[in-house]
Amino acid sequence: MKLKAKYVDVDTGEISVVMHDFDCAEMGIRERDRVKVGHEGKTTVAIVTTSDTVVKKGEIGLLGSTFHTIGAEDKEMVDVMASSKPESVEYIRKKMDGAELNTAEINTLITDISSRTLSNIELSAYVTALYIQGMNLRETADLTKAMVASGETISFDNGPVYDFHSVGGCPGNKITLLVVPIVAAAGCTIPKTSSRAISSAAGTSDIVEVFANVALSPVQLKTITEKVGGVFAWGGSLNLAPADDLIIKAEYPLGIDPHAQLLASVMSKKKAVGANYLVIDIPMGVGTKVPTMEEAKVYARDFIQLGEQLDIKVECAITYGGQPVGRAIGPALESIEAISILEGAKTPNSVVEKTVSIAGMLFEMGGDYQGAEKARQLLENGRALKKFREIVEAQGGNPDIKSSDIKVGQFNVDVIAKQSGYVGGIMNKALVRIARTAGSPNDKGAGLVISKKVGNKVDKGETIFTIYADNEWKLQEAVKLAVRLEPIEIQGMVLARVPSFSRVSL
Amino acid sequence: MKLKAKYVDVDTGEISVVMHDFDCAEMGIRERDRVKVGHEGKTTVAIVTTSDTVVKKGEIGLLGSTFHTIGAEDKEMVDVMASSKPESVEYIRKKMDGAELNTAEINTLITDISSRTLSNIELSAYVTALYIQGMNLRETADLTKAMVASGETISFDNGPVYDFHSVGGCPGNKITLLVVPIVAAAGCTIPKTSSRAISSAAGTSDIVEVFANVALSPVQLKTITEKVGGVFAWGGSLNLAPADDLIIKAEYPLGIDPHAQLLASVMSKKKAVGANYLVIDIPMGVGTKVPTMEEAKVYARDFIQLGEQLDIKVECAITYGGQPVGRAIGPALESIEAISILEGAKTPNSVVEKTVSIAGMLFEMGGDYQGAEKARQLLENGRALKKFREIVEAQGGNPDIKSSDIKVGQFNVDVIAKQSGYVGGIMNKALVRIARTAGSPNDKGAGLVISKKVGNKVDKGETIFTIYADNEWKLQEAVKLAVRLEPIEIQGMVLARVPSFSRVSL
Repeated sequence: MKLKAKYVDVDTGEISVVMHDFDCAEMGIRERDRVKVGHEGKTTVAIVTTSDTVVKKGEIGLLGSTFHTIGAEDKEMVDVMASSKPESVEYIRKKMDGAELNTAEINTLITDISSRTLSNIELSAYVTALYIQGMNLRETADLTKAMVASGETISFDNGPVYDFHSVGGCPGNKITLLVVPIVAAAGCTIPKTSSRAISSAAGTSDIVEVFANVALSPVQLKTITEKVGGVFAWGGSLNLAPADDLIIKAEYPLGIDPHAQLLASVMSKKKAVGANYLVIDIPMGVGTKVPTMEEAKVYARDFIQLGEQLDIKVECAITYGGQPVGRAIGPALESIEAISILEGAKTPNSVVEKTVSIAGMLFEMGGDYQGAEKARQLLENGRALKKFREIVEAQGGNPDIKSSDIKVGQFNVDVIAKQSGYVGGIMNKALVRIARTAGSPNDKGAGLVISKKVGNKVDKGETIFTIYADNEWKLQEAVKLAVRLEPIEIQGMVLARVPSFSRVSL
Repeated sequence: MKLKAKYVDVDTGEISVVMHDFDCAEMGIRERDRVKVGHEGKTTVAIVTTSDTVVKKGEIGLLGSTFHTIGAEDKEMVDVMASSKPESVEYIRKKMDGAELNTAEINTLITDISSRTLSNIELSAYVTALYIQGMNLRETADLTKAMVASGETISFDNGPVYDFHSVGGCPGNKITLLVVPIVAAAGCTIPKTSSRAISSAAGTSDIVEVFANVALSPVQLKTITEKVGGVFAWGGSLNLAPADDLIIKAEYPLGIDPHAQLLASVMSKKKAVGANYLVIDIPMGVGTKVPTMEEAKVYARDFIQLGEQLDIKVECAITYGGQPVGRAIGPALESIEAISILEGAKTPNSVVEKTVSIAGMLFEMGGDYQGAEKARQLLENGRALKKFREIVEAQGGNPDIKSSDIKVGQFNVDVIAKQSGYVGGIMNKALVRIARTAGSPNDKGAGLVISKKVGNKVDKGETIFTIYADNEWKLQEAVKLAVRLEPIEIQGMVLARVPSFSRVSL
């Protein structure tokens, strides 16, 4: 059928067209069927939305990317014919039915996702089926390889390649800013890529962006890493395993992170930069992604086994994630805390010790038997700071950067204790909500600094934490939320009163 | 935040807005988050699509229905604030995790689906989770009741209400055209609602539309039924259980029909018209929705038990669906076959016998012990034809309708046998594809008539089936498909040659 093109200026994230009900009936197609649209030798397959208002009979509305793909001008005639569903819809059905998918099926699925051939409905069915039915090790390895093949891969002249990843879910986890320069200061290659925050208060890229450019091209990543040994790159501009970003778009609204997809997501990005030695930090505890030690061990085993399939040597660190790492949460505040430690600060202890342990594990994987000691030396003798400044300079930042240069939010409020006692618990998710309400991660100076952590003694009237914001209105909203959520729980010192007559001698 | 409204002339089936990346970052919201949009006291919650081309910084694109709901003019300022996910997303997660949903959760879910509050991604996750995890009887009954409550309900002065439903999947199943007038001719009330074809060659409404108006309002349905006893109404215009139509929009692209949803879909429409006695036809066989007797029995048991929960007396007829019912497939051709039987034709036997059995079951449920005999009498004594004409007249058709009045496609081709033998099998799905390619159900005259059914002897050169079309080009495409698919299989008469020396006496 020939239809007249009409440009529709909206992009729904799907390759789609709008057709008139009459023309659909004439062609025997229904809403959400597919048509092949052709114009002067260029063709694309698009998903049909039906309407009797957006287009007239005989017209076809080409949405954003569809229009650009086939290059038809407004009012030019295009060829339209019914097209079948992509094969991968059948494989999604197969997974719904609990079957194992073979290598070719997984490859087709990832190819169709990468090319945006699948609709939102189909993509959602994939992540839901994967969440419920799971994948075995072989499928997960194939999924990872298919995702690597969907994007760029980078290889480095000076190997072996060291890498590090935190599963996330624990606020304030700024140790990447310390681990990378320590490892690079030892002459090792560590091309670290990171993400921006999705639901957290600050991703590593949000923090690094305070003092350096993180949107690097694959060529820049390679050049900088080969020159100075390490890098802090934002994954989003590198096109590593881009299928992952499209899958996340369906996972995010559902609030799910299917186990196999999480494994493949992490490992595909490591495989794409040719990692040889990889340490994975699994923060465990209430309010993280991994609440129990049992689940943490399952993740650890699966990462290690998947590493074997991909020829990456993996070790996992199950770390305590029940409260924030360090005291600062938010881009500027976290960068100050990390740089202070490079400059010689011995606290917060949780940040220093976690950094030294993780960097130490990497050194030990590479053959150094006193890894943690080596890491501590590189931190204490100033070589890590020197390397950090080299990396910052290579990424377009100030080569003489100091923690005192970094500006925090100009508005702040101290949250004080209503009673005396001990800090009994800190609710990670509540802190994240408060920091985000204050403007983090987009407002770089927004966030919070915790004065009292679990087990600390607090006197009535003392500051428990301080909220920072770049914008006064957002600060007020954050304070309101803090009062409502009470994210830091203070327990009275007397935990239980035991009457004296119960003290009997045995 | 205040943003300037921009009307975007497209409706994606979701209540959605387009916002600029900058404004999203400022508000801390991401693609597919929700915002509450308000203007002069009217508000709606919409799903966010982000763009840096469709809208400028400070603008918000209001898509189709969103625009109409809040009634903002182009360039007027609207209030926009972040909004949380609907609660039902949590219940979908719960179902993904295999949990049972309580009554309130199911009610909320169906309310959110009916109000189009759920996005396509969320709706797809629901049907996928339901397909995999299923629902127990209590949940299915609650689902059915919630779906009934989502739309119109109709009650009739002259009860009890008889009803009939076929699960479908077997082409040529035009018996509704016969069952309704037979039952109504006995003075019973049978307000039959039907659907149009989704993936079949013709739904009952597509067939009835050849000779009468099927798009009735709830008031018309009630008036006609109370006047003449029976009706052939299209469900689509009655707003019975409208949540179902929205759920089907997600099921259709995935090609799934979750068991609990299928049960609820059928039963909600029967409950909405106050059915007391219901016969369900479950066509069973290869190429239908229910391939085995075992599965058919599961459906039968579930329909009966669900009926008990809903106070509807249900009996099920498991019928042979391995080949078409009768000989005609397609709107005009099927209506001719059905009306001919009302006029006195004794064939096709499969249509007559199935009709008499089903109508007989209904009579027996109402207390007539010789139901099938009564049905056959009403068919043979012309009272069913008289009643049929009354119904047709009440629905705006010709009160003197005859089968010979109905026009079939002006183009036709006989498909002949390449060899002699017996018909060994008929592939339902292939016949449906051929009929649809010929233009059915939109082109009313298109379809096919089968001359040779399973077990019939065929001589080389004899006609096996005839394809009809309103359009010559579609006929040619259908013929090409028929040659490729060979939907009717002819087996040589000699099934196996057995050498004489193998004939041993025992």
